[in-house]
Amino acid sequence: MKVGVLYSGGKDSSLAAVLLSRDYDVELLTFVFDETHAVPSIEAAAKETGFPWKKLVFAPGFLDEVVDNIVRDGHPANAINEIHRRSLCAAAQEYEVVADGTRRDDRVPMRTQSEVQSLEMKYGVSYIRPLLGIGKTEIIRLAEKFFEIAYGETGTIPNGDFENEIRSEMTRRGIDFVSLFPKNHEQSLIIKKKMVNEP
Amino acid sequence: MKVGVLYSGGKDSSLAAVLLSRDYDVELLTFVFDETHAVPSIEAAAKETGFPWKKLVFAPGFLDEVVDNIVRDGHPANAINEIHRRSLCAAAQEYEVVADGTRRDDRVPMRTQSEVQSLEMKYGVSYIRPLLGIGKTEIIRLAEKFFEIAYGETGTIPNGDFENEIRSEMTRRGIDFVSLFPKNHEQSLIIKKKMVNEP
Repeated sequence: MKVGVLYSGGKDSSLAAVLLSRDYDVELLTFVFDETHAVPSIEAAAKETGFPWKKLVFAPGFLDEVVDNIVRDGHPANAINEIHRRSLCAAAQEYEVVADGTRRDDRVPMRTQSEVQSLEMKYGVSYIRPLLGIGKTEIIRLAEKFFEIAYGETGTIPNGDFENEIRSEMTRRGIDFVSLFPKNHEQSLIIKKKMVNEP
Repeated sequence: MKVGVLYSGGKDSSLAAVLLSRDYDVELLTFVFDETHAVPSIEAAAKETGFPWKKLVFAPGFLDEVVDNIVRDGHPANAINEIHRRSLCAAAQEYEVVADGTRRDDRVPMRTQSEVQSLEMKYGVSYIRPLLGIGKTEIIRLAEKFFEIAYGETGTIPNGDFENEIRSEMTRRGIDFVSLFPKNHEQSLIIKKKMVNEP
């Protein structure tokens, strides 16, 4: 059975993909706003995992809507949640099982129990979050078992996060990205898959 | 790294154990109130999984407390939650990582986010719930990939659940078990491990 896994190139979505790959045929899905936007770091990370990877494109106009919402709210939490919701809905139209690297200690993006039920009912899919029942210590232990990982603040490592497209659009419009996005938001990027002897 | 997994012989705790076994050395833990209480069905299920199994005993007096609380409440939800909490605390004194088969759609037993944090801080452990991010359809698909499973109402299959000890104590005290426990509570018991060709 195939599973479409939302993929950012970071340690969480990469670990989710590895854990799922023991029982499912994993395909990695990275969404961009503009189809011409290249995400070489994510593509390289996906290649390291060894799983097939696809770049998918949001509907036209969504980036404008996202930027408007962040400016209106004064913070990106709701917009990031909406990006996640749309990614899942789009994936659910192509896969019977969809998944992501949502962790127990994440606040955003996070689907509520009723949103999960609604997604599963509406599209007839299963939505799996392999990391939802795992805390930070074990996530890091497991992720570092499988991958060499680079860590850094947003913008300091090239982890093609969709924040880059939002940042560019804000800069184009003359909006101050830095004041609207939280500081000290640690990002991660998979550099290399380690050789692991599985039993 | 070892993980102590709360084990009932049912499909959820057995599946949790299998999923964890890809990354941890699994030991199964079944708690009883009375150390002379035999749990042959759980022991047989544990043997099928192939993982080491231990029977552990709650502190004296806990069964009385549990029965008193069920009678006081008129339902077993709080008592079952407390049994689960004590099981985790006891396991956390012996293992650096503890786990169980808590599912996304379970209401009881279920630890809240703050209880999870408190458990992890107090004992310096990690608490993993591998099934927390998975819905019923995929739980059943995965469990049936690994195991032949018997299903039935409580009391109709010999799945040595701790309800049996509570039922006996209530009968001894002349309390009507049937009126206090919910009807139509489906149980499961692992009958046989299937041969699975893992990649």
